[in-house]
Amino acid sequence: MSDGLEIKARIEALREKMSEAGADWYLMTTADPHGSEYINPYYREREYFSGFTGSNGDLLVGKKEALLWTDGRYFVQAAKELEGSGIRLMKMGQAGVPKLTEYIADKISMGECFMADGRLISADLGKRLALLFKEKRVIFISDKNLTEEIWENRPSDSAGKIRVLPESLTGSNPSRRIGHVVVKMREHGAASHVITKLDDQMWLLNLRGEDIACNPVAYSYTVINGRDVSVYLKKASAMTSVCDSLRHSGITVKDYDDFYDDLEKMNLEAPVLLDSNNINYRAYQILWKKGRIIDKINPTEEMKAVKNATEIAHIKDVYLYDSAILTRFLFFMKKNAVRQKITEFEAAELLDGMRAQLDGFRGLSFPTISAWKGNAAMMHYEATLYDNAVIDGDGLYLVDSGGQYDGGTTDVTRTLVLGKVSDEIRLHFTRTVMAMLRLQNTIFLKGCTGLNLDIIARQPMWEMGMDYKCGTGHGIGYMLNVHEGPHNIRWAHRGERPETPIVPGMIVSDEPGVYVEGSHGIRIENIELCREITENDDGTFLGFEPLTLVPIDLDGIIPEEMQPRDIELLNNYHALVRKKLMPFMQGEDIAMLNEATKAIG
Amino acid sequence: MSDGLEIKARIEALREKMSEAGADWYLMTTADPHGSEYINPYYREREYFSGFTGSNGDLLVGKKEALLWTDGRYFVQAAKELEGSGIRLMKMGQAGVPKLTEYIADKISMGECFMADGRLISADLGKRLALLFKEKRVIFISDKNLTEEIWENRPSDSAGKIRVLPESLTGSNPSRRIGHVVVKMREHGAASHVITKLDDQMWLLNLRGEDIACNPVAYSYTVINGRDVSVYLKKASAMTSVCDSLRHSGITVKDYDDFYDDLEKMNLEAPVLLDSNNINYRAYQILWKKGRIIDKINPTEEMKAVKNATEIAHIKDVYLYDSAILTRFLFFMKKNAVRQKITEFEAAELLDGMRAQLDGFRGLSFPTISAWKGNAAMMHYEATLYDNAVIDGDGLYLVDSGGQYDGGTTDVTRTLVLGKVSDEIRLHFTRTVMAMLRLQNTIFLKGCTGLNLDIIARQPMWEMGMDYKCGTGHGIGYMLNVHEGPHNIRWAHRGERPETPIVPGMIVSDEPGVYVEGSHGIRIENIELCREITENDDGTFLGFEPLTLVPIDLDGIIPEEMQPRDIELLNNYHALVRKKLMPFMQGEDIAMLNEATKAIG
Repeated sequence: MSDGLEIKARIEALREKMSEAGADWYLMTTADPHGSEYINPYYREREYFSGFTGSNGDLLVGKKEALLWTDGRYFVQAAKELEGSGIRLMKMGQAGVPKLTEYIADKISMGECFMADGRLISADLGKRLALLFKEKRVIFISDKNLTEEIWENRPSDSAGKIRVLPESLTGSNPSRRIGHVVVKMREHGAASHVITKLDDQMWLLNLRGEDIACNPVAYSYTVINGRDVSVYLKKASAMTSVCDSLRHSGITVKDYDDFYDDLEKMNLEAPVLLDSNNINYRAYQILWKKGRIIDKINPTEEMKAVKNATEIAHIKDVYLYDSAILTRFLFFMKKNAVRQKITEFEAAELLDGMRAQLDGFRGLSFPTISAWKGNAAMMHYEATLYDNAVIDGDGLYLVDSGGQYDGGTTDVTRTLVLGKVSDEIRLHFTRTVMAMLRLQNTIFLKGCTGLNLDIIARQPMWEMGMDYKCGTGHGIGYMLNVHEGPHNIRWAHRGERPETPIVPGMIVSDEPGVYVEGSHGIRIENIELCREITENDDGTFLGFEPLTLVPIDLDGIIPEEMQPRDIELLNNYHALVRKKLMPFMQGEDIAMLNEATKAIG
Repeated sequence: MSDGLEIKARIEALREKMSEAGADWYLMTTADPHGSEYINPYYREREYFSGFTGSNGDLLVGKKEALLWTDGRYFVQAAKELEGSGIRLMKMGQAGVPKLTEYIADKISMGECFMADGRLISADLGKRLALLFKEKRVIFISDKNLTEEIWENRPSDSAGKIRVLPESLTGSNPSRRIGHVVVKMREHGAASHVITKLDDQMWLLNLRGEDIACNPVAYSYTVINGRDVSVYLKKASAMTSVCDSLRHSGITVKDYDDFYDDLEKMNLEAPVLLDSNNINYRAYQILWKKGRIIDKINPTEEMKAVKNATEIAHIKDVYLYDSAILTRFLFFMKKNAVRQKITEFEAAELLDGMRAQLDGFRGLSFPTISAWKGNAAMMHYEATLYDNAVIDGDGLYLVDSGGQYDGGTTDVTRTLVLGKVSDEIRLHFTRTVMAMLRLQNTIFLKGCTGLNLDIIARQPMWEMGMDYKCGTGHGIGYMLNVHEGPHNIRWAHRGERPETPIVPGMIVSDEPGVYVEGSHGIRIENIELCREITENDDGTFLGFEPLTLVPIDLDGIIPEEMQPRDIELLNNYHALVRKKLMPFMQGEDIAMLNEATKAIG
């Protein structure tokens, strides 16, 4: 994209601005003002000033040095992209490599001036910086942005269309949902509440937008102040009909660009509820100065995780259609991929095109991962037209994909055996299947969190002395972001808040895997709906129902490596898949489905 | 023991004292000044004033009412023991029953006076009370005890002998251990440290005492103040040789009874490290008033949980001898219990007597649980000479027992099938064996806590829609308390501190069970030593080695209910047991061991 010299020039331009502003350091992270996971190009300033295009990176520019922190997924890519830029790569998590804040604490001198755009750093990072600046009396300026004037050909600020979802799709309406949030605010003793997280607001207001690729959200801020509810939307986004609908629910519509000024001036009833894990430093600072803060998870985040009956009914339909499409794609690949020497990119295009034909399709829920052999060992691999492998010879093909539909957001991964693979690969495949199915069939007491469940999936890997370096599962939005909290399935507790129990109505991914660098990557991912199994004197027992109904490639299985119970789980799952998918099959796919879901063992 | 009228008279006497002191409420919990799990009779004031003898209960006396809170284990017993006393039983955890603090908050009136002996309530409870008294301006007196003058024939204050352990048994000495604690204090930024937890002090100072039954501890307080270390011991306990030995390590020996006065006057270097979960309210208050507190787990608690090489070598020996004795006892019971109509009490006496003959035996680590049929479903059942069942007919016999030895503290449970039992009981037995063995053979990444591991043992129960209402595992002391923290194996996180990972050198019990009220109780408990299995790029993998080597009764097993892997684990374990125990067997026990450990499946 940009060569080293260009980057050097940009950083020099920034240093001039810094010098004018009296700043010794300038920090750019990877963020929009809402803490979104995917970032609209408009906010990719770190990319513009570093040349590094990965999805996670912090760029720190000092008067003489510039450094970029990124994680293990991007070490190779970042090293390549930073070449000639003079930016030093800081490999996060590697021994001897200080963290961003540690580095700053070490290098910053008494009385220096540190700058970052407070809208584009998290409250958490801002607070930690402010704390470590105290002793050294560092001046911390966070209400200015120095990059705007330098950035040439900056992508335009998105203002996609906003639409209002009918109650037939959401099973609720803004008034009712706001009512529930207000009850929760009162439980916490709060009189007002500021929400900046986009998907939380979309859920609350029954809105969907187009401001971030794959995430159907609109840039927005919501303020619940006593009895008044205001939502700040982009003028160009909020059509008259949207505004009317919101006003009909008693919500005042204001201009997105006025939010910070308004917030400064606003007479907010105290205490104010906010989620410091999901708010930017600028908004946090304004609210903090106003007085009492109650720092808790957004009630919206907790509520939207538990899908209601209407949502669940739609989700089940959508997953069935989506499963049928993927199954037909997998059958095609099984037959033709190697013979036709299809590329990873072509395969992704084909699958995306098949999904696009489904009723209610509105786009992908994330860029399709279509990966052959060693490429599948890179967890966030994305084949591009210019750089992708040809599926040829023997190996494993992994496809992780999903769609946004009217009625749900899908996410599913399957791994196919093409040709002949080694016994070791088949062992890894078998273990992955055992892991996924065991978790899918786990029974657990109400109150359990992902911390309790994770080992069920991980045990078959750990027994081999292997581990997958990612979570086992994440929540999924309803016509919203493919990654959604607050629950998850992982073994290490993060942050200070307790983990959220997995309760009926929640959906969560179940995606163990094996990743061997340069050789193969296996991931088999079903989406599970949590439901109650039984209730008795010993408690309420919960379990999962698979929403994903796609055959698991039997060519990867070594039945002798499985326990009889594992084989039973696989055969039961395949019988269900066969029954549910058969109505969608025609021609030779009928025979293929029968073959793909036959009982083994 | 005491009848209702006697209790009424005692409470009236207390009310008179309360009236003299101007108190409206008086609270007694179940505690000594050190937060010990088992309470020396000297401190059982709650028992004296209520007649309730259970191990957990809070007695609240008001001007007109008296109430006792206890948990589900004791509902039946408490109801019986409180009869005629006029004390109202508050069943903890039952719907509609307020908690102690909720009740107080509700009933106490503006400006009233509340009393409790601050030494005999936890800092945590004291702080919560003080907080809820603030609004109602309640006077909270916590530096007086009103029961002392009323209590007739109070048991004498224990002052058992103290002995110094040789380095050959502990693998370390007080100077070195204090050195490690001081390093940890510095890491926390603390300049001084007060320890009131007894087993922590015993470990730190290489001392053992006799002040609490089954727990070889001596009443003591330790203060590390900069470079000075003082230990407060009872005059009658600390022999000259003990004092000399401590002084040799640079430790000042002071009088136990001077502790609180000294603490008030002491020039303690700030900040002071203390563990508010393991200190009484009086000591906490004194320290809190002095200034900065760092509230963290005692470093001693963390350090003593990880056994050193010397300790582990002794522990392995002791567990082997202890396992051999228990096995011989179990063989005897299997042959003779029903035929001779042995009572639960006689069985316990027999086992205790056999243990007493072992070299280095110093007492039981807890009162032996010897329970037949339905009695075994009560988790804390203790047969007494006057009240215990005859082992007769068909059923399950459960024995949970352990010893204190020079070289270790043991704890082990086995359940025997005597005669013929139902298929349902055998299913429960089989599941318990599967649960215990699966946990024993789990492989996990370093960093895992009991929260992660618990489900491995609980899954076979949860799959049946059953749950055991206790933890799966607890830490065990070395020549110390049979229950020891900070690690444990349970699924629900308690408290605010993060759980402690299970790391090599820790020992932990593995004791799943099935409890069916009035019918049967099954518990199979091995003690496991955590050790490293392998280390590679994916991390450090840990596992367990069983210290307990006692056959599991094959008569309880339904092999068809087990997976092949479960049968393999059982056969492997039994092969190990046979190999290790055979040298200890003679006569017909040799044949019995061969039979009891034969491979099945």
